[in-house]
Amino acid sequence: MTEFIPPGTRYFDLPSPFAMKRGGELRGARVAYETWGELNAARDNAVLIVTGLSPDAHAAANEGNPEAGWWEPMVGPGRPIDSNRWFVICVNSLGSCKGSTGPASINPETGDIYRLDFPELAVEDGANAAAHVVRALGIERLACVIGNSMGGMTALALLLQHPGIARSHINISGAARALPFSIAIRSLQREAIRLDPQWNHGRYDDEHYPESGMRMARKLGVITYRSALEWDGRFGRVRLESDRPDEEPFGLEFQVESYLEGHARRFVRRYDPNCYLYLSRSMDWFDIGEYAGGDVMAGLATIRVEKVLAIGVQTDILFPLQQQQQVADGLRLGGAHAEFMPLESPQGHDAFLVDIDRFGPAVGGFLASL
Amino acid sequence: MTEFIPPGTRYFDLPSPFAMKRGGELRGARVAYETWGELNAARDNAVLIVTGLSPDAHAAANEGNPEAGWWEPMVGPGRPIDSNRWFVICVNSLGSCKGSTGPASINPETGDIYRLDFPELAVEDGANAAAHVVRALGIERLACVIGNSMGGMTALALLLQHPGIARSHINISGAARALPFSIAIRSLQREAIRLDPQWNHGRYDDEHYPESGMRMARKLGVITYRSALEWDGRFGRVRLESDRPDEEPFGLEFQVESYLEGHARRFVRRYDPNCYLYLSRSMDWFDIGEYAGGDVMAGLATIRVEKVLAIGVQTDILFPLQQQQQVADGLRLGGAHAEFMPLESPQGHDAFLVDIDRFGPAVGGFLASL
Repeated sequence: MTEFIPPGTRYFDLPSPFAMKRGGELRGARVAYETWGELNAARDNAVLIVTGLSPDAHAAANEGNPEAGWWEPMVGPGRPIDSNRWFVICVNSLGSCKGSTGPASINPETGDIYRLDFPELAVEDGANAAAHVVRALGIERLACVIGNSMGGMTALALLLQHPGIARSHINISGAARALPFSIAIRSLQREAIRLDPQWNHGRYDDEHYPESGMRMARKLGVITYRSALEWDGRFGRVRLESDRPDEEPFGLEFQVESYLEGHARRFVRRYDPNCYLYLSRSMDWFDIGEYAGGDVMAGLATIRVEKVLAIGVQTDILFPLQQQQQVADGLRLGGAHAEFMPLESPQGHDAFLVDIDRFGPAVGGFLASL
Repeated sequence: MTEFIPPGTRYFDLPSPFAMKRGGELRGARVAYETWGELNAARDNAVLIVTGLSPDAHAAANEGNPEAGWWEPMVGPGRPIDSNRWFVICVNSLGSCKGSTGPASINPETGDIYRLDFPELAVEDGANAAAHVVRALGIERLACVIGNSMGGMTALALLLQHPGIARSHINISGAARALPFSIAIRSLQREAIRLDPQWNHGRYDDEHYPESGMRMARKLGVITYRSALEWDGRFGRVRLESDRPDEEPFGLEFQVESYLEGHARRFVRRYDPNCYLYLSRSMDWFDIGEYAGGDVMAGLATIRVEKVLAIGVQTDILFPLQQQQQVADGLRLGGAHAEFMPLESPQGHDAFLVDIDRFGPAVGGFLASL
């Protein structure tokens, strides 16, 4: 998997041992990160980005790597997350296969790949790992922590576990806890991987790889990342060019099927299946209510942060809009000046990656107001 | 599969050969059906029910079979579809494995199971088969044709291909054509079955059966048949009783996962995988616009029917509400008195099966007004 770690990625060695929330610990673990801009003398201009399940730390082009990143139009000089003003940090999630230590990494105690011997991973572990990077960079207090999707969970866990670590927070298509529809979708994605005989309880290699399971999981992901509305306009009922381009019985026939297939093919060998399972499950487990006797609003109210923007879109079926409203309402109970901003994007959960016309001004406007 | 055909099912032999829309023909094919109530002397009190993908013809208890049916609270004496007034007919879809001829039936020309030698199946074929049953029962003009889900497509095909066959129509959570989100979901369900090595290009048997593929397909179905809103209230984040009841890595942990598992287990051996593939694909192909140069509204406007009720629910992600509105609007263009009735059910696409408090009065009120 190492070939899919972007060049220019930097690493921070976590304290060893690094204790995990649900038990166990990591030794010799590290976190991959990248930065944009400069930390000012007051060390008060740092903005941290924590990501969804699949992105690496390369959010945008920078000195170490001029290639475009996964959030290219959002991060850089003059862009909404403006590196002329902010020192921007993006960390790759603990448990990922994109540079940070995860189930695809070598277990230093055995010399073999962790696979399912990796300890149970919680969103909170990723937050703690990110906090170490922030501290190591000499930052006591972030100007803002921005979390997208799963990163919205990570950011809340960071704020909860490290009071005062950030003055402000932008929660984008995130949630304070996983709800059963999303759990069901992710459970089915994991089952697709687990049912693939090539998964083999995590003991696959490049020759024997759970390609079918990963393809199913990714397709189901893409279906839930976008929206019916967007696809009506984008694909309609357009067929592929030949009448039956796929000779297999019940093979692909519509453009939308081919779109899913393309997405799946690009993903299956670029993301480690065990890492996928671990990070997917960490989202199901996440519940801020756990810190307040099961009451999610009370859990959010324990978080201290000055200013909050929670952004979501109506067409998101995976992290539905009312979850971002809940984040804003709950953090307001804790004393934050919190704004909830529903956007009209038709692109569903992934809108923040593509609808820069709406997300750019929302994020940029908030940061400019700090 | 024959053990899953309800006792008391009746059969009508289709004309032989029976020509199929996309080519090929069936010989010695039959349609399973059941009835409730009595046809009156004027033969003008017949109501036909055409179903979704999985139901059999046993919509409710009757003389031939006192067991409760799949739409028990809706059909019978004094019920919304009142068999004291109406002669109610429910047909099992052509291509199903619940009595009507389908890919799991014996091909009389070979003496073997059709499997993938069954000709390509279109929704229109099911409509034509249903029309033969109606005619054979001595009915020239139905008082109403009621179609649920896929049956909503079948009913439109019936009205289009057999002008005058029904005075009125109730379209429940149906659609005039398949849209890409639904196509994507169904394509993925079919892929899950196709990827199961036990499917073996349709040549499975009871010993070598695509159980995993069917389980995935059914779980994905159930996810899209219900709604996030319903599940929030019903399951929340409740865990199964033991901490890790499923010893498998990444095994089931939340109630919602166990609910899906239960649904899947009840289904996988009770529905033939090849029949599932054929009927699933027939929905993707369906497009009333095909009859009017690609214009779905123009296609609907060619249909002649006097009175229409199109019912849908906001929480339906598989046949979204705007599709029932489109059915009403399009049939109104064709001269029908058409009412669109959005219901507040939280149960999603399957609401018509469970939210009888809302669907009962809607359907019963319309029929009473005829």
